[in-house]
Amino acid sequence: MNLDSLTQNSGEWLRAVGPEADIVISSRIRLARNLSSFPFTNRANTHQKAEIEQYLQGRLQKLDIDLQLDYFNLATITPLDRQLLVERQLVSRELANSEGPRGVAVGANEIVSVMINEEDHVRLQVIRSGFSMDEAWQEADRLDDKLEEKVPYAFSEELGYLTACPTNVGTGLRASVMLHLPALVLTKQIEKVFRALQKINLAVRGLYGEGSRASGDFYQISNQVTLGKSETTIINEIRDVIPQIIAYERQARQTLTRESRPLILDRVKRAFGVLKSAAMMTSEETMDLLSSVRLGVNLGLIDDINIVVVNQLFIHTQPAHLQKLLGRELDSEERNSERARFLRNRLSEMDSMN
Amino acid sequence: MNLDSLTQNSGEWLRAVGPEADIVISSRIRLARNLSSFPFTNRANTHQKAEIEQYLQGRLQKLDIDLQLDYFNLATITPLDRQLLVERQLVSRELANSEGPRGVAVGANEIVSVMINEEDHVRLQVIRSGFSMDEAWQEADRLDDKLEEKVPYAFSEELGYLTACPTNVGTGLRASVMLHLPALVLTKQIEKVFRALQKINLAVRGLYGEGSRASGDFYQISNQVTLGKSETTIINEIRDVIPQIIAYERQARQTLTRESRPLILDRVKRAFGVLKSAAMMTSEETMDLLSSVRLGVNLGLIDDINIVVVNQLFIHTQPAHLQKLLGRELDSEERNSERARFLRNRLSEMDSMN
Repeated sequence: MNLDSLTQNSGEWLRAVGPEADIVISSRIRLARNLSSFPFTNRANTHQKAEIEQYLQGRLQKLDIDLQLDYFNLATITPLDRQLLVERQLVSRELANSEGPRGVAVGANEIVSVMINEEDHVRLQVIRSGFSMDEAWQEADRLDDKLEEKVPYAFSEELGYLTACPTNVGTGLRASVMLHLPALVLTKQIEKVFRALQKINLAVRGLYGEGSRASGDFYQISNQVTLGKSETTIINEIRDVIPQIIAYERQARQTLTRESRPLILDRVKRAFGVLKSAAMMTSEETMDLLSSVRLGVNLGLIDDINIVVVNQLFIHTQPAHLQKLLGRELDSEERNSERARFLRNRLSEMDSMN
Repeated sequence: MNLDSLTQNSGEWLRAVGPEADIVISSRIRLARNLSSFPFTNRANTHQKAEIEQYLQGRLQKLDIDLQLDYFNLATITPLDRQLLVERQLVSRELANSEGPRGVAVGANEIVSVMINEEDHVRLQVIRSGFSMDEAWQEADRLDDKLEEKVPYAFSEELGYLTACPTNVGTGLRASVMLHLPALVLTKQIEKVFRALQKINLAVRGLYGEGSRASGDFYQISNQVTLGKSETTIINEIRDVIPQIIAYERQARQTLTRESRPLILDRVKRAFGVLKSAAMMTSEETMDLLSSVRLGVNLGLIDDINIVVVNQLFIHTQPAHLQKLLGRELDSEERNSERARFLRNRLSEMDSMN
């Protein structure tokens, strides 16, 4: 796998397939694991981190599975490539920005990725398009078992898997679902949904993890507590609540089309018009406009574009993707101008295809 | 002249010809006159107003001039037609909204109009496209002389022409220039210009007279005082200050293109994009967007459209014009939706012509 080849498509998480794909962007399982014979990453020195990396990289390549994993050494690739991996959700911003020996193994189609030397030695991620939590969990569980055959994990009979941060101790499992909730935002019901989720100890974040506001009306919902719960309990908690949020979003969409159709149509058409005509465009605004367009396509208000292309534009207009696609580094102002040009070109291609 | 035929073009004042037409929309002379043998309009009863109207209408039709004047009886035409005449600047909002016998005589091409029973018995207006104050004054002066041959004006040797409001006593002359000043607005220098104009006793108003905010960055500058000044003095005062404002606006446009070209280009392109794509559009927003497009055409930033069409859209999207063009009455929400459709259609015609 070549890093540049990644920019040709959207990756698994934006493939726009799977159950409820109009609202559920993707389902993700993350497992945190550590080697029993090394200090946690934040206690390990550079030499130890290099050993951990070498050790895990070797074991990952010899797993008894039908999956080719390509390894990217984050210490040697360019900052732009690191950012590209972050934008594709293959590595965390933390791993990209940290120092020392570290990397990520990525499977074909970007369904599987394994970060090495993040907060924990191993961060195994399986991501699936749509509301496909079970598939993601089965694949993650299978890979975890295969890895455990080769690698002695830090494990306590009493506590479960040991992790650098206490919040992950136990199963080391984070189950999360990425939702597109434009109608709940428009109808100002999103805060109510958040409060309800917080009460049952689920966390809500924006597209690019903690601290990032919810650009493009994308919300990641995940469990906060793993200690004292089984994997099945955690996954069921998430899996049971998501259909309710989907139902709320659908209800809000119906209300909008029934009571404010002209306003929504106007919003959608304007968003598409601005994307096709602006001369400068931040990625933040791009995501917000694409969110309106995505809603419009799902409500059947515009047929100038399909969801696959909308999803592709979400990722291709991110800063690193844009620079990789254009083949050169750009400062912020150049990016805004090139992003606008990119959108105009892509959307006028659409026009001529219709 | 048929009122409906007016909607086919933009009228003289938006013809976009004449000196400095990129900034100076039009130059206008208005003369206030009263008959010596009748009380002022606000003192006249309905019977007297009917007499005044009949008397003046008869005289206007027998003027020794090469100009056909068509008379519109404002008491009998529809409210929509009255609003149409207001939007075309042929009658004041006051005349349209008042009651009793009243009307307007309009010459070919809408250069000349004579209101009857406005605040004064006679309000003679000559409007010319571009910075053409002298032409407007010469025509107004000529018509005034011709009318004075037939009609005994209320005139005092000491005070000059007598008018209902003291501010008009003397010459009864109001000279005004309509300017398009988007760059002074964008660079936030417009307030400074206003303060300077107020110091020399010139009034600044929006497009549709007193009380209306300056939609579309259109500003009308006119004299406030007529008593104690000759016609030549008044006209010179206006005529001398306008070139300075034109110079300021040009300077601001140069500054914008030199220092903020990408921002201005973006503003212009977005405005055009939104006009082409929105599903709802108020006339207020239409004017603001068209103002950006007009600036863009004048700065050579877009060539999708020319100034004549932009000017036409300014007037054709006004509420009464829109309803006349569509041949039916519309409530405010219908207008916003039909206005957006009208703009999309007109601008996509442009596209297919390019």
